[in-house]
Amino acid sequence: MDNIVEYMQGVGQAARAASRIMAQADTAIKNLALSEIAAALQNQSVQVLAANALDVAAAVASGLDEASIDRLMLTGKTIESMAEGLLQIAQLPDLIGAISDLNYRPSGIQVGKMRVPLGVIGIIYESRPNVTADAAGLCLKSGNAAILRGGSEALHSNQAIAACVQAGLKSAGLPETAVQVISTADRAAVGCLITMKEYVDVIVPRGGKSLIARISADAKVPVIKHLDGICHVYIDDDADLEKAIRIADNAKTHRYGVCNAMETLLVSKSVAEKVLPPLCQIYRDKGVELRGDKTACELLAGITPATTEDWRTEYLAPILSIRIVSDIDEAILHINTYSSQHTDCIVTENYSRAMRFLREVDSSSVMVNASTRFADGFEYGLGAEIGISTDKIHARGPVGLEGLTSQKYIVLGSGQIRL
Amino acid sequence: MDNIVEYMQGVGQAARAASRIMAQADTAIKNLALSEIAAALQNQSVQVLAANALDVAAAVASGLDEASIDRLMLTGKTIESMAEGLLQIAQLPDLIGAISDLNYRPSGIQVGKMRVPLGVIGIIYESRPNVTADAAGLCLKSGNAAILRGGSEALHSNQAIAACVQAGLKSAGLPETAVQVISTADRAAVGCLITMKEYVDVIVPRGGKSLIARISADAKVPVIKHLDGICHVYIDDDADLEKAIRIADNAKTHRYGVCNAMETLLVSKSVAEKVLPPLCQIYRDKGVELRGDKTACELLAGITPATTEDWRTEYLAPILSIRIVSDIDEAILHINTYSSQHTDCIVTENYSRAMRFLREVDSSSVMVNASTRFADGFEYGLGAEIGISTDKIHARGPVGLEGLTSQKYIVLGSGQIRL
Repeated sequence: MDNIVEYMQGVGQAARAASRIMAQADTAIKNLALSEIAAALQNQSVQVLAANALDVAAAVASGLDEASIDRLMLTGKTIESMAEGLLQIAQLPDLIGAISDLNYRPSGIQVGKMRVPLGVIGIIYESRPNVTADAAGLCLKSGNAAILRGGSEALHSNQAIAACVQAGLKSAGLPETAVQVISTADRAAVGCLITMKEYVDVIVPRGGKSLIARISADAKVPVIKHLDGICHVYIDDDADLEKAIRIADNAKTHRYGVCNAMETLLVSKSVAEKVLPPLCQIYRDKGVELRGDKTACELLAGITPATTEDWRTEYLAPILSIRIVSDIDEAILHINTYSSQHTDCIVTENYSRAMRFLREVDSSSVMVNASTRFADGFEYGLGAEIGISTDKIHARGPVGLEGLTSQKYIVLGSGQIRL
Repeated sequence: MDNIVEYMQGVGQAARAASRIMAQADTAIKNLALSEIAAALQNQSVQVLAANALDVAAAVASGLDEASIDRLMLTGKTIESMAEGLLQIAQLPDLIGAISDLNYRPSGIQVGKMRVPLGVIGIIYESRPNVTADAAGLCLKSGNAAILRGGSEALHSNQAIAACVQAGLKSAGLPETAVQVISTADRAAVGCLITMKEYVDVIVPRGGKSLIARISADAKVPVIKHLDGICHVYIDDDADLEKAIRIADNAKTHRYGVCNAMETLLVSKSVAEKVLPPLCQIYRDKGVELRGDKTACELLAGITPATTEDWRTEYLAPILSIRIVSDIDEAILHINTYSSQHTDCIVTENYSRAMRFLREVDSSSVMVNASTRFADGFEYGLGAEIGISTDKIHARGPVGLEGLTSQKYIVLGSGQIRL
């Protein structure tokens, strides 16, 4: 590509123009496009798999690690689940144009809010090519145009999926430029995308912490992001110990490499002797390495001393740090100090402490007596999510269709003027 | 001040610590603080006026322009209205802690949202010292801590008002550091404030376009801003001409120097000959300079030709640009091209075109048959506003208490785990 800035400006202009049309598109047309894209993916699965095979072969040749290759690889089954995902998005209610809180004011005007798309969403992601279809679907249903920039190792796969997306848009009569997939591996494209304030309304980075940190530092466009998930479970004095063990087990061991897995377990000292020995037996049986503060090390055999660094670490692995606290105050202080404000849980039967925890813990999801693993757009009923925001501005927690929209004020009058 | 970075870091740390206490403060305590601050302003009005006199004398000596001195000057009446404003904020409902949409999910957990403060709000403003009290009141009621940085020419006035704010906070038992007024005129303080991401959650700049543009360009913290108000009134083919004249008159001439004043009038060609002559007579009688496109110049005598620059200009003065358009499509295209996305209005009796205008105009307030002058937090029923956002992210349109808050997800379970 000769001039990357010129290319990206062109992409941005086309996206802005398409966003005006997408904002007005009927629900039926948007749903038709989603089902046409799903059909295109199914009909062109051979072409998509062939393109993916090119990417996988190049990745193997270049010595990419196994986990990345695993994320890159598509199968007939993953293509089928991309198509199903799009059909599920078609089933979700259309939020655009919804008018709420339309009330009369003393001046005689009616004032309300109308839900509108954000405009143009830039999505930057790493190797998983299925994000191309998911993100396109969410942006389309929420009336936005999208500019997608996947990992360079997935370039052929993403282009093949993009061809299906564009075929679907075209067959529904929507502009093909409503979803554009960047066709260059040049990293400068990302630099343009995150600074084109005139053409891009928000950036959603999906991927590792370093990618997201880099994008956040350089972006001029607002970013909806989550950096990491250092999630806590606090077992309170009045915990039901059976629930506590079940939740603390599930939160850590259900899946290790996910952002809503527990990384630090806090236990009130009055119940530590009862709950920790059986719980740690479960962890040991599942091969979880345990690290603990001084008191935990005294209580439990064969546990490594934890350092302050442990409290700040998202392991994404079968490792758990354990701290014994004197009461809920120390637990909340620990969480508000070390948590990444993703998801934190208290296990308790005590009403007042449950209420205090809900109110005082400053995280995007705060739970009572439920596994942190529930922090997820699907489990919350959003239908699908574009990411989980640990910011407080605009969107917080799992971000579904609503997070990709805004509201404008509407005023209905009958000739009123300011006096 | 020896080390401005160190000073600002200290302010930031204190604000973050205070924000934790403010987030938990009872409604009654917050309202008490507001009324105590109002009382302190009334009791210490002599001291506040004396401090203000120092600033005004210095401003006169330094040759500051009259409009700025006017904005800087306090009187017994302005202090009284600051106190009244605080008492009005005390009357507004407390949004913090409100739980909404708490529903059961198939897994058995209940998922809802709880409204929470943003945390620490940085407010940067120009000469008006009354912003110190208004902004402090809004941040306090919404459970946030505030760092206020007023214009250097108002330093004594702001410190005197700050003393009242802190007396009120103290007397209600809240931390005095919940509202801090920067005590240095050094501009480097602003540079620190807008980049201290660890201590500041959002910046609200209030003032001229150049101040806001500079802050937006350099900020690392999210900014809630509006740059300018290039507002339009479009008189449609099916307008009630009496309403059209009334609204177009009010939108332009009610006040000239405000962001929700009309700057460009669009008129459908089918009604231009009827509506423009009487309307322009009103404008001429009020001393409004008229600039028009070619057709308008042909139709009306003594009107200056408008250039493209006029369509892009917020006059904030008795100047109006007029364009005659062929239909609503051209009107919407003009607005979506030149409007600053603040407030735009259609005057029509036609249902379909009213609905189209509401849906298709991409501005923070879109109106039918009402003066653009209604775009205001008080007129919309928000009670008070910290500013008007022309952004789409987080807050759009007049920003009241809700715009200074966020929502976190809460999950209430009874021992559920992910299967």
